[in-house]
Amino acid sequence: MKLLYLSIPEREKVWKEILAPHGIEMIMGEAAVTDPASITHIACWEPPEDIARYPNLEVLISVGAGVDHMPPLPEGVALSRTLAESIEKMVRDWCVMGVLATHRDLPVYLDQATRGEWVQHAPNTAKGARVGIMGMGRIGQLTAQTLKSLDFEVGGWSRSGRPVEDCPVYDQAGLDAFLARTDILVCLLPLTDETRGLMDAAFFAKLPRGARIVQAGRGAQLDLAALRVALDAGQITSAMLDVTDPEPLPADHWAWSDSRLIITPHIAARTGYEEGARHVLAVMQASAAGNPIPGQVDQKKGY
Amino acid sequence: MKLLYLSIPEREKVWKEILAPHGIEMIMGEAAVTDPASITHIACWEPPEDIARYPNLEVLISVGAGVDHMPPLPEGVALSRTLAESIEKMVRDWCVMGVLATHRDLPVYLDQATRGEWVQHAPNTAKGARVGIMGMGRIGQLTAQTLKSLDFEVGGWSRSGRPVEDCPVYDQAGLDAFLARTDILVCLLPLTDETRGLMDAAFFAKLPRGARIVQAGRGAQLDLAALRVALDAGQITSAMLDVTDPEPLPADHWAWSDSRLIITPHIAARTGYEEGARHVLAVMQASAAGNPIPGQVDQKKGY
Repeated sequence: MKLLYLSIPEREKVWKEILAPHGIEMIMGEAAVTDPASITHIACWEPPEDIARYPNLEVLISVGAGVDHMPPLPEGVALSRTLAESIEKMVRDWCVMGVLATHRDLPVYLDQATRGEWVQHAPNTAKGARVGIMGMGRIGQLTAQTLKSLDFEVGGWSRSGRPVEDCPVYDQAGLDAFLARTDILVCLLPLTDETRGLMDAAFFAKLPRGARIVQAGRGAQLDLAALRVALDAGQITSAMLDVTDPEPLPADHWAWSDSRLIITPHIAARTGYEEGARHVLAVMQASAAGNPIPGQVDQKKGY
Repeated sequence: MKLLYLSIPEREKVWKEILAPHGIEMIMGEAAVTDPASITHIACWEPPEDIARYPNLEVLISVGAGVDHMPPLPEGVALSRTLAESIEKMVRDWCVMGVLATHRDLPVYLDQATRGEWVQHAPNTAKGARVGIMGMGRIGQLTAQTLKSLDFEVGGWSRSGRPVEDCPVYDQAGLDAFLARTDILVCLLPLTDETRGLMDAAFFAKLPRGARIVQAGRGAQLDLAALRVALDAGQITSAMLDVTDPEPLPADHWAWSDSRLIITPHIAARTGYEEGARHVLAVMQASAAGNPIPGQVDQKKGY
């Protein structure tokens, strides 16, 4: 077994320290590969241009939680994503910040600050405000837990509608009902054929007037032009976005200077150097033992 | 018993509905007072200029949690502050937002957004970050609880050092040790002779380099000029302030446009109309029955 790692030199040292004691040979960067047939595992964020170059590839490992940017893999090649507890909690923290920031009108106060305006608006209490979380996996459940402890009324939505303790979860058929009861929408969905373009004019119109959006899913799920129309119409009050379409958002894009938006550049989470290496180690050990691959993704479903 | 209420007409209706059924007579505004000797209770945020005008005053009631702006009261006149659960939770929410916003470098991203810069910085995990809460009353304890559940390492400081479950609390003698272990400082202290000017150059120097400040106490506790020097020196990374000195902050004050600061105009909490009236009702009923006054403040201690 041999690992090809596509990353920055800074990470190489940390990975070597974790992998070498287990006899795992690691090659840094495609340019250093002399025998492509020797590569059994590839760990990367940006995948190689030509996956077919590696005939004996067993697992392609995304060093992040997302896999929507990965190419279709040949039969027999597994796809694994890195799900680390620290990632889940970092995204949860970002979402809690996003819910509080939009709910407590931080965009309004940031805008006032540009003009030095000390103007108070009645603060919103968490009690009575309805948060709706799309994507009730581990991050969604962590986020629900924290927001419930702050007295928000939390509901969830997932494709399956699989029940979660202490939180009503709507399924596909219940989407309209879910949106109708959601004052603050948190999106944590993966990018799939079904979620691409999900948040459009019709979607925004199904939320209560004045709703807020907290987007930690994937950029292509939200139509920024439709969001702008909904903001102008007062249908949406404000939004906090960690992902955009396109990404990076061009410097001259209108969204940067729209006072109703807070944009962070896809930093809700980043895999720690060590956690990434530990995940790869676990995958390679599972491969060798013929055990189920940790973090394996069903590429058809997209998660 | 007769109540003088200094507030806006908007609130009058709600208060009347709650107080009238209990036979409480309410006068709106000092101009409407024909017999000052009939007034036994005054509820207000801004107190009357001449308290001595009301010889039979029993209790002066602040409709907020703060009482530092109240004049010294004659012997025998009690001071009560409105402590409502909703206020406590609103302030807690603001503090949680402030901790997450400064910890996750929101000021940096807001600044980048003004130039359309999509530049990522490694996100900080809550785990390993030490929050220090000054003021471990009810709001401090609520805030500690939430931040601990997010994996922050939380310590508290109070004058007495009175123990709190699951959270080390430093006392007056332990202030330096408390500051030395505090990466993110949350101030919830009341304004007293001892806390006025507390956060000055020497105070900031005792924090670890790069610390963050979340200020929900009172403006006069923090020396803005000293904060600016500490920010310039990198001693403090960023701060989120809900209170300032002076207040309102003048439109041309440098702090408004300092990218390392987020300022909200004293909106961490506001007493709900109904909750304010219910507190006054409880005070007047206690007065009538000769029971201890709810929310009574020791004016010498200041809380």
